Amino acid sequence: MPRNAEAGRRSILLGTTTTLAAFSPYARAQAQTTDPLPSWNDGPAKHAILDFVRIATSQIASEDRIATFDQDGTLWVEHPVYTQAMFALERVHTLAPQHPEWRTYEPFKTVLANDEAAIAKFSERGWAEILFATHAGMSQAEFLQIVTEWLATAKHPRFRRPYTELVYQPMLEVMNYLRTNGFKTYIATGGGQDFVRAYAQKVYGVPPEQVIGSSIATKFEIKDGKPELIRQPRLFFDDNYTGKAIGIDLFIGKRPYAAFGNSTGDREMLEWIGAGEGPRLKMLVHHDDAEREYAYGPAGGLPDTSVGTFSRSLMDEAEAKDWAVISMKQDWQRVFRV
Amino acid sequence: MPRNAEAGRRSILLGTTTTLAAFSPYARAQAQTTDPLPSWNDGPAKHAILDFVRIATSQIASEDRIATFDQDGTLWVEHPVYTQAMFALERVHTLAPQHPEWRTYEPFKTVLANDEAAIAKFSERGWAEILFATHAGMSQAEFLQIVTEWLATAKHPRFRRPYTELVYQPMLEVMNYLRTNGFKTYIATGGGQDFVRAYAQKVYGVPPEQVIGSSIATKFEIKDGKPELIRQPRLFFDDNYTGKAIGIDLFIGKRPYAAFGNSTGDREMLEWIGAGEGPRLKMLVHHDDAEREYAYGPAGGLPDTSVGTFSRSLMDEAEAKDWAVISMKQDWQRVFRV
Repeated sequence: MPRNAEAGRRSILLGTTTTLAAFSPYARAQAQTTDPLPSWNDGPAKHAILDFVRIATSQIASEDRIATFDQDGTLWVEHPVYTQAMFALERVHTLAPQHPEWRTYEPFKTVLANDEAAIAKFSERGWAEILFATHAGMSQAEFLQIVTEWLATAKHPRFRRPYTELVYQPMLEVMNYLRTNGFKTYIATGGGQDFVRAYAQKVYGVPPEQVIGSSIATKFEIKDGKPELIRQPRLFFDDNYTGKAIGIDLFIGKRPYAAFGNSTGDREMLEWIGAGEGPRLKMLVHHDDAEREYAYGPAGGLPDTSVGTFSRSLMDEAEAKDWAVISMKQDWQRVFRV
Repeated sequence: MPRNAEAGRRSILLGTTTTLAAFSPYARAQAQTTDPLPSWNDGPAKHAILDFVRIATSQIASEDRIATFDQDGTLWVEHPVYTQAMFALERVHTLAPQHPEWRTYEPFKTVLANDEAAIAKFSERGWAEILFATHAGMSQAEFLQIVTEWLATAKHPRFRRPYTELVYQPMLEVMNYLRTNGFKTYIATGGGQDFVRAYAQKVYGVPPEQVIGSSIATKFEIKDGKPELIRQPRLFFDDNYTGKAIGIDLFIGKRPYAAFGNSTGDREMLEWIGAGEGPRLKMLVHHDDAEREYAYGPAGGLPDTSVGTFSRSLMDEAEAKDWAVISMKQDWQRVFRV
């Protein structure tokens, strides 16, 4: 349930005119139309963003205004499984006719049998086999094309809508608000860098060169007389946990001033940016809205082991370090883009 | 010796007014003040750039206008040894008091003895030992500081001037001209990514996030209670040969439309961009000016083995594929920035 829209308002935003403005229907209407974050309920999370941007624009040089966003669970739905995992599973079905051996070879046999309970128990090694079988062996351009075509028709199992519509409208507003104030917005995803690059410009307004993620090795090969970069079945970089800080530094060479995540995989990114000088915005999306989306992490009681979980220890750290926790249920007036 | 400034002029640049303009003192003066490449002599190299930009701005979407530049030998002097190697050698002297064992341990013993002939014969493994001893063990921020301080006082052995002054003025003009026409200019260096990031903004107007290079691994560590990224004595990525194309795709996710190099280490970058659709500018700087700078490659007869050489086979490929070769002696009216 949204909190009262005026109750939590601090004077920082509108200065000393706040009280007067609250009583003037005209001023209130105007404030609504100019609100850069209209899908956010008034509250500490929204104010953390507004306060940060106000301070950032006066204290941070424009070339240093960098913000990084995790993707799965921070910008779009990650349940019941990561979208990219869904892509990989459906891709196994698509490619199966070319791989008759998969009918008797695990983990492919289980995927082709649609045994969801068994799929949920796949080991990391099993997933790696599925990922390499579906993400390697083609050129970078071909892979982008395959992902683009899949996204055009694939639908989320619960919401029955394209994944690209299950993007969080409040987070799009934050990205846009930061960009309006001179920030470069980057995605720092534990998921596949090239998978996300296939749609990040269209969906988030983030160009390929501002998408940092996990990547597989590529190899320079001559194909049909032309040099192409061919995707290899081998992990090149794991952009999770400490890898998020390392990847951001590798690609950008600067420590961001704002970072957004939602899981233990984002912990070190927030710790690292938090250790920098000056104003730093560190935010975590907490999925506590089973009705409109999902409830997990402290709200849903998932164990502190797997990627994608908002563990109790992460919540403790967030509270101890004054990171801003976004309650999906409380802070978001609206969840999805469409 | 510069070619006649009018002889090679094609009508493409000024259209049908060229002949008239050439006879009008006023028009010629005006053309001079608006020339985006004033340090270039008129000739095929200059025209290749002007023609490309004219076509590019009408045919390439602004978000796809990417140009990549090798650094050593393409943007600044690389002889007698790479600047970064000079940094490493001088750094060995600076750190020697903390490493008494170096007095008897190779390759450090040779460096401390200033035995230039023996240094010139160091194996790759020897250089790796020197690089790791001087480039690892500190945080990224500390390393940037060390490089910045060194560059402030270090001088080139022949020209007796700071390395950052030995940047090629004609190439700065090309970078600037491309940026003016909506291109993002990236450095794609076989040298150290973080070394170049220490000065690329100041010297080339290229921000850290547009510097792609060879990198060593970093590790997320808590230092004095704060998370820092500590440089490890281990190569993470080798941005040479096929690595240049791979690195560019990894960082940018797009195939550049223009690329500039000067050695066999840049070959695959040029081949890769040349295989893309639409207008593509592929250029090589040929060092044939022993008087103002150096003569090597086909002009100087260096063997076709080491990085940094413009081999005969590279020249053959450039001619076969119509890559534009820049003759430092013929095409550059002026060599250095200062």
